[in-house]
Amino acid sequence: MARRARAARNRADAAAGVAASPYVRRSLPFFDVLDGEQIEKLEAQVDWIIQDVGIAFRDDPEALELWRSEGAKIDGDIVRAPSDWIRALCAKAPREFTQLARNRARSVTIGGTNQVFAPIYGAPFVRDLEKGRRYGDMDAFRELVRLTYLHPNLHHSGFVTCEPCDVPVSKRHLDMLMAHMTLSDKPHLGAITEMSRAQDSVDMAEIVFGRAVMDENCVIMGNVNTNSPLLVDKVVTEAARVYSTRGQGMIVVPFILSGAMGPVSTAASVAQAMAEAMMVCAYVQLLRPGAPFVLGNFLSSMSLKSGAPTFGMPEPVVSNYAIGQLARRAGLPLRCGGSLTASKIEDAQAAYESADSMHSTMLAGANFVLHSAGWLEGGLCTGFEKLIMDADRLGGYQKVLTQGLDVSEDALARDAYGEVEAGGHFLGCGHTMRNYQTAFYEPKLSDSENVESWEEAGSQDMRVRANARVKDMLAQYEPPPMEEATREALEAYVAKRKEELPDAWY
Amino acid sequence: MARRARAARNRADAAAGVAASPYVRRSLPFFDVLDGEQIEKLEAQVDWIIQDVGIAFRDDPEALELWRSEGAKIDGDIVRAPSDWIRALCAKAPREFTQLARNRARSVTIGGTNQVFAPIYGAPFVRDLEKGRRYGDMDAFRELVRLTYLHPNLHHSGFVTCEPCDVPVSKRHLDMLMAHMTLSDKPHLGAITEMSRAQDSVDMAEIVFGRAVMDENCVIMGNVNTNSPLLVDKVVTEAARVYSTRGQGMIVVPFILSGAMGPVSTAASVAQAMAEAMMVCAYVQLLRPGAPFVLGNFLSSMSLKSGAPTFGMPEPVVSNYAIGQLARRAGLPLRCGGSLTASKIEDAQAAYESADSMHSTMLAGANFVLHSAGWLEGGLCTGFEKLIMDADRLGGYQKVLTQGLDVSEDALARDAYGEVEAGGHFLGCGHTMRNYQTAFYEPKLSDSENVESWEEAGSQDMRVRANARVKDMLAQYEPPPMEEATREALEAYVAKRKEELPDAWY
Repeated sequence: MARRARAARNRADAAAGVAASPYVRRSLPFFDVLDGEQIEKLEAQVDWIIQDVGIAFRDDPEALELWRSEGAKIDGDIVRAPSDWIRALCAKAPREFTQLARNRARSVTIGGTNQVFAPIYGAPFVRDLEKGRRYGDMDAFRELVRLTYLHPNLHHSGFVTCEPCDVPVSKRHLDMLMAHMTLSDKPHLGAITEMSRAQDSVDMAEIVFGRAVMDENCVIMGNVNTNSPLLVDKVVTEAARVYSTRGQGMIVVPFILSGAMGPVSTAASVAQAMAEAMMVCAYVQLLRPGAPFVLGNFLSSMSLKSGAPTFGMPEPVVSNYAIGQLARRAGLPLRCGGSLTASKIEDAQAAYESADSMHSTMLAGANFVLHSAGWLEGGLCTGFEKLIMDADRLGGYQKVLTQGLDVSEDALARDAYGEVEAGGHFLGCGHTMRNYQTAFYEPKLSDSENVESWEEAGSQDMRVRANARVKDMLAQYEPPPMEEATREALEAYVAKRKEELPDAWY
Repeated sequence: MARRARAARNRADAAAGVAASPYVRRSLPFFDVLDGEQIEKLEAQVDWIIQDVGIAFRDDPEALELWRSEGAKIDGDIVRAPSDWIRALCAKAPREFTQLARNRARSVTIGGTNQVFAPIYGAPFVRDLEKGRRYGDMDAFRELVRLTYLHPNLHHSGFVTCEPCDVPVSKRHLDMLMAHMTLSDKPHLGAITEMSRAQDSVDMAEIVFGRAVMDENCVIMGNVNTNSPLLVDKVVTEAARVYSTRGQGMIVVPFILSGAMGPVSTAASVAQAMAEAMMVCAYVQLLRPGAPFVLGNFLSSMSLKSGAPTFGMPEPVVSNYAIGQLARRAGLPLRCGGSLTASKIEDAQAAYESADSMHSTMLAGANFVLHSAGWLEGGLCTGFEKLIMDADRLGGYQKVLTQGLDVSEDALARDAYGEVEAGGHFLGCGHTMRNYQTAFYEPKLSDSENVESWEEAGSQDMRVRANARVKDMLAQYEPPPMEEATREALEAYVAKRKEELPDAWY
């Protein structure tokens, strides 16, 4: 009976996942921390980097030739350009755009006051309480895609939720794309590591969406890092030639560990990140004016003990606030932050760091948040329990962003004061009875019972409850429907490409 | 050798504690979330409660008589008054004031852009990793005072860091005062549970500071709750008669579990909290115009499963932001929030909830933050490890508040770009060498090493590292100096009062 009740509850949870709001429409004001002088100095620094320092576009003569033909000043592979021209090019990128999902009810709008949350990207390892830490594989990858599909607070499936290390690098992207396209109907990213893999991503998306839809809409995006400092390599420019020229989205993210890939200063690193990403945005707009673009920022502080990156620290928190304001001024959708931590396990360190990192990401108005759940070890490891713990917490933040403070007549509850005397209580009054079921967000994994009840239930650390929930969710998983013809076409594409491609492991 | 190095490091830490900044002077802008319409509606609701609903002043005829003589409308024990008169009285309270510490270098300024952090208050239980959960006692109390004294991120010693349950209730306050006054030289609060205990607090403070200093300065404060909804009992009014008439501070805090002590609505609960606290502030200003006053807010959400209070949730987060703005408009120093959690142990739940709660407290501009470290179990239990974990994290937040974003010439680091090429690194450049030692805040308890180093060190959960640090700190503790005559006078006072008072256990 208990099992049946749990099964029913789980089906309800799964349904709630399917019915969730496809993204956050923010009503809370942005948190602008920069004053006029700070903005002026930071933007002057961005202009100075673009005009005087320059950004290298390396190992891709075609990209350099485009810059040259459009009038930029080329010195070796360093591109310098008038900053007002670069800003005018950036202004061609849409302030907001929609990425279609194959289930249109899950399409997301990125930019403006919209905020979209996706899981961790790129970890070679995975960890859960039973099997411990190990290399990621396709089984783990598929489970992570299923969990992301089921969780109502994750709006986007991301892409490399873990590296499936049991599949050759040369073919991995095909299996990952297949998993996202068939096990979920949320929007997702595509491959970028090589031009042909990006092309496979776009080709498979075309199978799912059809040429006509794809010509008119963004249905897939590539997420790439610049090679900071001041270097854009061909991974970026080639991915842009595949994605942007088809009108698909590009997310471009300078990853700057301050003191290594940028000066050991938050202000300088923020300005450098803006300059690098804006130069790529300008390049994208030269390829195809109006192509969707997301300006990324991923700034990390450093441990003095070891030089290791640190997360959830004050310097990246401030950088999130600052770049949010600069991105809005530039009119570009923003990606930053996430639930980041250097902790190896799902302990208090992981939660403190993830919460502080995410809180600033949220308030900064980040429009697309990769790494919003599952991070451990500075991104080297995807935690199954961590994914669900983070995602659970996202719901609270998302309520803050969406609802702000309701001051409607009902929220002011004047009628309640007619029923309750000084020193009395509001537990049974009409206003409470009308509203209590929707008044509070209650995360599933928080235990708010008294210590006796908690001890009776086994004195569980949050991660133990998360482990049980991961299993419950996976047990309840059912794939979203897909037309048989589409599935067969995808399978045929993957089979053909797997035959054509060599097995390469690096 | 390792032990000697650790001892040296610990002495350096202890010294850092003594040398810390006495409070946070904020440069980061406030986070104002309310627009004009929201402010208007909330303030109209506050006025309506003050004028039309009224607040009961119960079981204290002297307080009621003061209201009557000043012209308030009395109906039974309900006090109603024109809201513009109440607001005018509140305007007599100082926008900011200084609470002297016996070591003047540790005096704190409360109000304006200043933020002061104090540990947990009022928990009957304590918990640490070795001894588990148990009733608090004077030994634990003294250790908590010592840890607070040593920690550079805690500026204020608070008062009931745990309930010393091995001492009769009737005499407990004397031992607690003695501990704060002799084991620490940070500022602290006094007793409020009965008028004579408040008087003992003020009398003992006079021994420490001397009559002349005390006549001109705030040297001690009482922290009291209203009896929400809409009820002020004699604990509040009598404490005010002791503290406020001597020009000492009063912190008055409506504790509202929305749906029980206030309507099940954040907006209504915020307005009720403002109205209750402002009425007490007005009462205090009638007693002594200009007496220091801190407006408190402690709003909690509720679990639908059990009716238990929940912490770190979106509703109290929003309430913090809102009341920060309203308190600034009223010109009153604010106390709210803290590192709050319903978790029973120092796990990820505790950290997520504490971080979200504290982050909003910080951004709201709370001027005095009680419960900023050590909370477990909704405030029923003080965690030794939790105290140090929370305090460790405070340093990061405090850097965000204090420093904001530095855009000075050195921070923009233009010289560094002359040394570093595209794709190079900034590790050894002049700017990095000049700045790396102060560039980043690194919490002592965060482990940012790689997984191999972490495993070699024993795969420690953060709470294990915190346990070791608690022991290290206590081993290094040395009491701050105190004049022998002062100590003897305090001891004599306590001995005399202990003889006069009966042993009462409740």
